[in-house]
Amino acid sequence: MRIGIIGVGTVGGGVVEIIERKRDEFHAKFGILLEIAGVAAKTEEELAPFKAKGYKGFTDATELLDDESISVVCELAGGYDLPFKWIKKAIENKKHVVTANKALLAKYGNEIFPLAEKKGCHVLFEAAVGGGMPIIRSLQEGFVGNNVESLSCIINGTCNYILTKMATESLSFEEVLKEAQRLGFAEADPSFDIDGIDSAHKTAILASLCSGSFVDFEKIHVTGIRGITAQDVQFIQELGGVVRLLGLYNKVGDKVDARVHPCIVPSDHLLASVKCELNAVYLQCDNLGPTLQTGAGAGRLPTASAVVADLVSLARSVETGNLEPLPMGWFQKDNSAKLVPIGETSTRYYFRFVTKDDYGVLADITGILGKNKISIESILQKNTNNREKVDILVITENAMESSVQAALSEIDSLPEISEKSKMLRFLS
Amino acid sequence: MRIGIIGVGTVGGGVVEIIERKRDEFHAKFGILLEIAGVAAKTEEELAPFKAKGYKGFTDATELLDDESISVVCELAGGYDLPFKWIKKAIENKKHVVTANKALLAKYGNEIFPLAEKKGCHVLFEAAVGGGMPIIRSLQEGFVGNNVESLSCIINGTCNYILTKMATESLSFEEVLKEAQRLGFAEADPSFDIDGIDSAHKTAILASLCSGSFVDFEKIHVTGIRGITAQDVQFIQELGGVVRLLGLYNKVGDKVDARVHPCIVPSDHLLASVKCELNAVYLQCDNLGPTLQTGAGAGRLPTASAVVADLVSLARSVETGNLEPLPMGWFQKDNSAKLVPIGETSTRYYFRFVTKDDYGVLADITGILGKNKISIESILQKNTNNREKVDILVITENAMESSVQAALSEIDSLPEISEKSKMLRFLS
Repeated sequence: MRIGIIGVGTVGGGVVEIIERKRDEFHAKFGILLEIAGVAAKTEEELAPFKAKGYKGFTDATELLDDESISVVCELAGGYDLPFKWIKKAIENKKHVVTANKALLAKYGNEIFPLAEKKGCHVLFEAAVGGGMPIIRSLQEGFVGNNVESLSCIINGTCNYILTKMATESLSFEEVLKEAQRLGFAEADPSFDIDGIDSAHKTAILASLCSGSFVDFEKIHVTGIRGITAQDVQFIQELGGVVRLLGLYNKVGDKVDARVHPCIVPSDHLLASVKCELNAVYLQCDNLGPTLQTGAGAGRLPTASAVVADLVSLARSVETGNLEPLPMGWFQKDNSAKLVPIGETSTRYYFRFVTKDDYGVLADITGILGKNKISIESILQKNTNNREKVDILVITENAMESSVQAALSEIDSLPEISEKSKMLRFLS
Repeated sequence: MRIGIIGVGTVGGGVVEIIERKRDEFHAKFGILLEIAGVAAKTEEELAPFKAKGYKGFTDATELLDDESISVVCELAGGYDLPFKWIKKAIENKKHVVTANKALLAKYGNEIFPLAEKKGCHVLFEAAVGGGMPIIRSLQEGFVGNNVESLSCIINGTCNYILTKMATESLSFEEVLKEAQRLGFAEADPSFDIDGIDSAHKTAILASLCSGSFVDFEKIHVTGIRGITAQDVQFIQELGGVVRLLGLYNKVGDKVDARVHPCIVPSDHLLASVKCELNAVYLQCDNLGPTLQTGAGAGRLPTASAVVADLVSLARSVETGNLEPLPMGWFQKDNSAKLVPIGETSTRYYFRFVTKDDYGVLADITGILGKNKISIESILQKNTNNREKVDILVITENAMESSVQAALSEIDSLPEISEKSKMLRFLS
C-alpha cells in the first residue's frame, strides 16, 4: 500500500520511524507492505533528512495528492484550512485518509465524513483522540455490543499534569504552568490546552461517536483550569477528592449532554489514579458496565503508533479484501445532536466563599441557597484563626446548574463576601 | 449473516438478548443483519424459551453444524472436548467461529487456529479474555504499531474480589471465599479460579498474542491465592502495597517469561486501583509506554457484548467485503515460545518468618540470605510483644528465584522457625 505523508514534524517523523522499524514484521505477519511513496513539508529543510533516505519529497502537498499510485494520505501537518483542503482533494481523488488532527475533525468533520462516505473512502483517526490509546477503535468496534450511557475523559495531558502537580506539590497554577513550560509539557502559549479548547475538540468527537449524532464543539460548554486555586485543590484533597479537567458525555433521553470543565473526582475513583500527562477515557456502558482505558495521550511515538495502527488496518482491508468504510455519514450538521444546555444539568457542587467572619453571613448564604432550592450536604469553616478572611466550604446535594448560577451571583453581591465565590462540580 | 449458537446458558442467552435489542440498530448503522438461524443445547428444556420465540432448536449440535445456510457458529457451551469437536467441524464446513471459551483455546488453540487459517475461516474470541473489555482486538489491531514489552493482568474476578475484600475488611481467605460463594462471585468448587488455572488459560492466550509464538498454558508457572494470609495482606498494606493475583508476560530477548502468581503491587500503581471483580490488563509498549484497560471480566451481558462485537465485526467483513482472517497459524506447537524457567526470573521479594524471639535467628536468616546472594532492602520485626511468635519481615532487593527457593528451604529447616516461611513477589 503506497502512502503519502503530509507533515513530517514530530508525529509524521515518528510514523516514518515506526514504519521503517516494523515494515518487515508487518509483511511477515499480515502479508502487507507499507510503502512510503512520498512526504510533503513546507520547506526543503524539513524534507532534507527524508530525501536523504531516498523518499520522494514535495514542498507542494497537492502534487503528492495528484500521485495516482498513492492510495492513502496521512495528514499530520496540523492546523485547519490547508489540511481541510488537502483531505477534501485526497478524497475527491479516491484516496483513503489517516489523520491525527482533532481540531480539523471537530471543525470540518461534518463535511469530511459525509464526503468520504459518498466516495467510498476510509477516514481513520485513532491518533486524534487519546494519542496511542485505541479508544476510537474501541468505540467503533469493541464496544459495539453496548450503548454508551456516559463517558468521562481526561483528554489533555497538559491540564492533567498541572492539576496533578498542584495537588502533590501544593503549588499554585501559575507556578506549575511555568514548570510545565520549562519541561515541555505545556506550550509557550498554553491557552489552547488550559482553556479547554483541545479537550472540547476531542470530547465533541467522542460524544459524536457515542451518540451517533453530530456534536458541534463550538456549542458545548467549556471551562478550563485557569481558575483553579491551590487553596481549593488542598481543601478538596482534605475532603477525599482530586480535581481533574474532564470531558463529559451523557445520554439524556434523546438529548446529548456534552461539556468540558474541571470536576471533583473521589480519590478512590479510577479516574483519580490517572496522573500527570496520562489520558484516560471512562465509559459507562449498558451491558459492560464501567470500563476505563488509560495511556499516553500525546507525544511523538505514542501518537505515531496509533497512526501506524490505522495504516495497518487500511492495508489489511484495502489490499487483502474490500471492507467498506465504517459509516460516518451521520457526522453532519443536519444530524446534529440536541444538546442539553448546561443550565439544565445537575450534580453535586463544591462552593468556597471568602468572608469576614461575620456571624450573620452563614444565615445569608444558606438562605440564598435554600431560596434557590439548593440542599446542603455539609458546611465547613476553614482558616477561622484569621477573622478577616474565613473560608466557608459548602458541599451541596444534587442541584440544578441554573439555580447554582443564580445563587452564586446573589451571594457574590453580599457585602460580607470579599472574593468572587469559587465553584467546582462533582463528577456525578 | 446467519448465526448458529451452541450453548444458550448464561452467555449464550445474553447474546440472543443483545442481538434482539440491537439488531435494528446494527442494520441501520452498518447495513448488516444478524440473524439467529438456530440454537443448540443439551436438553429440550433449555431450548424451550428460545423455540417459543421462534428460533430453530437442536439438541444435537452437529445438526446445526451441517446447516449450510449458517455462516458463523458461536460456541458458548464451555468445556473442552465436545466444543473442540464442534469447532473443528464448523471450520471443516467453512464456517467462521466466535467463542468465549478460554480453556478450549488454551488447550486446543494450537490445532484450531492453524486449521482455520488453512480453511480461510475467522476465529474470533474477544469474550475469552477480559469479558467485555476489547483487549484481544486492542492487541491484534490497536497496539499493532507497538511491541508489547510486558503485560501484567488481573484476569480473574473471583480472585480479585477475594484479595480486595481480605484487605478492606481484614478478613481471612476462608471467610471471604465463603462470602463470595454466597454472593455468587465464586463457584461451589472454586479451585479453577483460586488455584490460578483460569488465569493461566487467559495469560497463555495473551502471552501468545504478545509474543507471536505459542505459549502453552500447561508449561507456565502457576500459583493461586490459597496461601495468602490476612496477616500478610495487612503487613503489605502497612508497607504501601496491595496483593493481586497477576498474569505476567515479559519478553526477555528471544524468550518468553509467562507466569501466574500473587504479586505485591504498590498502592499508587494503576493495577492497585482495580478492585473487587474488575479485570485489568496493563501493558508496557515500546512506542506507547504504559497503558491500561479495565472493565468487567465476566458476567452474562459483559461477556455477551464482546461476543456480539465479534459478530458485528464478522458481519461487516463477511457480508460487505472479503477481509482475510487475521493470521493466527503461528499459534501452534512447532512455533512454541522458548519459556524462561521461573527459577531464572528475578524480582524483589517479601518474606515473613515466624520465630521464637531468639536473638540468634536474625543472624542465621541474614547469613543464609547473604550466602545465596540475596541483598536485603529492609528488615522489620512485628508482634514483638509475643516473644514466642515474632514476625520478621524481610524485603529484598532484586534476587533470583532459584536462590530464593534455596534460601527459604534452608531457613525453614532452622529450629527457631516455627511456621513455613511466607514469600510474595513484587511486581517488577
